[in-house]
Amino acid sequence: MSFIELGHGSGGRPTRDLIEGLFMRYLDSVELRELEDSAYITLGPHSAITTDSYVIQPLFFPGGDIGKLSICGTINDLSVRGAIARYISIGFILEEGLPLVDLEEILRSIRKIADDTGVRIVTGDTKVVERGRCDGVYINTTGIGEVVRPLSVGDVVDGDVIIVSGTMGDHGTAIALIRNEFDIETSIQSDCAPLNGLLAPLYDIDGLKWMRDPTRGGLATVLCELSEATGLGIMVSEGDVPVREDVRFISDMLGYDPLYLANEGKAVIVVSEEDAGGVLERLRRDGLGRHASIIGRVTGDFRGVRLKTRIGGERVLEPLDHEMLPRIC
Amino acid sequence: MSFIELGHGSGGRPTRDLIEGLFMRYLDSVELRELEDSAYITLGPHSAITTDSYVIQPLFFPGGDIGKLSICGTINDLSVRGAIARYISIGFILEEGLPLVDLEEILRSIRKIADDTGVRIVTGDTKVVERGRCDGVYINTTGIGEVVRPLSVGDVVDGDVIIVSGTMGDHGTAIALIRNEFDIETSIQSDCAPLNGLLAPLYDIDGLKWMRDPTRGGLATVLCELSEATGLGIMVSEGDVPVREDVRFISDMLGYDPLYLANEGKAVIVVSEEDAGGVLERLRRDGLGRHASIIGRVTGDFRGVRLKTRIGGERVLEPLDHEMLPRIC
Repeated sequence: MSFIELGHGSGGRPTRDLIEGLFMRYLDSVELRELEDSAYITLGPHSAITTDSYVIQPLFFPGGDIGKLSICGTINDLSVRGAIARYISIGFILEEGLPLVDLEEILRSIRKIADDTGVRIVTGDTKVVERGRCDGVYINTTGIGEVVRPLSVGDVVDGDVIIVSGTMGDHGTAIALIRNEFDIETSIQSDCAPLNGLLAPLYDIDGLKWMRDPTRGGLATVLCELSEATGLGIMVSEGDVPVREDVRFISDMLGYDPLYLANEGKAVIVVSEEDAGGVLERLRRDGLGRHASIIGRVTGDFRGVRLKTRIGGERVLEPLDHEMLPRIC
Repeated sequence: MSFIELGHGSGGRPTRDLIEGLFMRYLDSVELRELEDSAYITLGPHSAITTDSYVIQPLFFPGGDIGKLSICGTINDLSVRGAIARYISIGFILEEGLPLVDLEEILRSIRKIADDTGVRIVTGDTKVVERGRCDGVYINTTGIGEVVRPLSVGDVVDGDVIIVSGTMGDHGTAIALIRNEFDIETSIQSDCAPLNGLLAPLYDIDGLKWMRDPTRGGLATVLCELSEATGLGIMVSEGDVPVREDVRFISDMLGYDPLYLANEGKAVIVVSEEDAGGVLERLRRDGLGRHASIIGRVTGDFRGVRLKTRIGGERVLEPLDHEMLPRIC
């Protein structure tokens, strides 16, 4: 078995060998093949750009790995802004001693999502740090998308409906379980998935106002930020938020709240009352949206986020004020 | 003094406080102020994209810091491809325990280079890893530029002239010195600088063929890659390569070859023989190009890179086959 060495980051022959011998086998594209420090791309006038670094531990988890996560996350950040992901850049920070088979598996995942979604990986970078200076691999992906439907939180008004595209808390729970090594058999997997195919059919719905993918901080954090950005209130019904039974059970056991747990293949969608049914119907046509549900409404009656609990009470949802589960993306 | 905590990466309130209380004070832009996961940008049809992660140790060094380096590096990778840098995304990986004053100094450097060059920082991301999982700060910058003069290595032919824009090896030597803590007084600083102002005036010169900034692996690596990509030979005259006296002295002492040492504010330029004088003249008009020199020629007489040494001999320049000095960018 071979491993990453410091020389792979030298910029010289070992770097070339790594790029040509491994990276290009999976990430080959016309642009990358030029081996220049920047790639030429063609874009329409209205674009969107997003960047994210991925530091998840462990690198491989039920339902995905850091490679799949990095490409999906970038596609999703563009999708929720009404943009079709076109080009992605990837920067790898590799730890000395990383097994090349692990890197290869990560590259294979990246290739698969790129193929499935039609996004092009056009430029990249590799750095190597000494053993103990990262956790195997950190990845940065930056994505450029073509804006089909510009969305603005300023369009959200009193009476708009809030929809989630599926169950909440799967990713956070899957990561918590694999980290804690409990002796529990569950089928919980990360929901890590590209949302471009699910969300693009919504772009021509007039009443579509705003979307966000509830990753770090979960649904509650997205709703709090929505309330803060609009100055409006949000009323959510706990019983309407789709949560898997086993996710609820494990969360209770570990002391987590699924509303604050990360998701990596879900969207929160704000839509006018009249178009809510249309959005729901289109979401449910797609496998990724089969549990899509209306969970609440925007209101001018108060500020902040309130939750109608299952037992008929009401409580305020506050932004997360501490780290519930670090390194989840 | 305050420090980075894991909670700053939660995505919740502490993340918001860090972004609004610190990042936005330095990186404020219309796009960032929206606090969305991707930013809308406007671009001409022909763009270039580049990405780099920065893992340099130490974070602060004579002539710059990781913040300045990250913005300059991205601008330069676009500049050598005939593109004007317009938009930059920044991803921070922060180590738990990083003093906020250090982060603030890095942000101040980023702001300064952005202001000096007119590049807009439009989107960002922050992750926090546990103590000992990075070296204070790793930064990824991805840049999008408008292509003014597309350049292709395919245009390089026998007889073309090779120019470097200034002295070689300053950055690598400055980093080696500060790491080794020698008891030597020198004025050697990193040459870290944005090259947009130096190189843009060359874009309308007909005979301009190809450019590259000689960072990791230095001048020798760039020339080897140029030879490999063109299938042509390169003859370089050692005596014509500008190297500071003190850089040469320190390199000799430490066993480095300045031709393989990293530069962070220099360009290697290939130009037709007839336009070489024009390129040289424009470079020398700019302070960053005052030591610009013709160092060699492209030739069809052999393959690979040959160096005419100062003492009249000739030797082959090979690509770097090991790590001379890790973590230099």
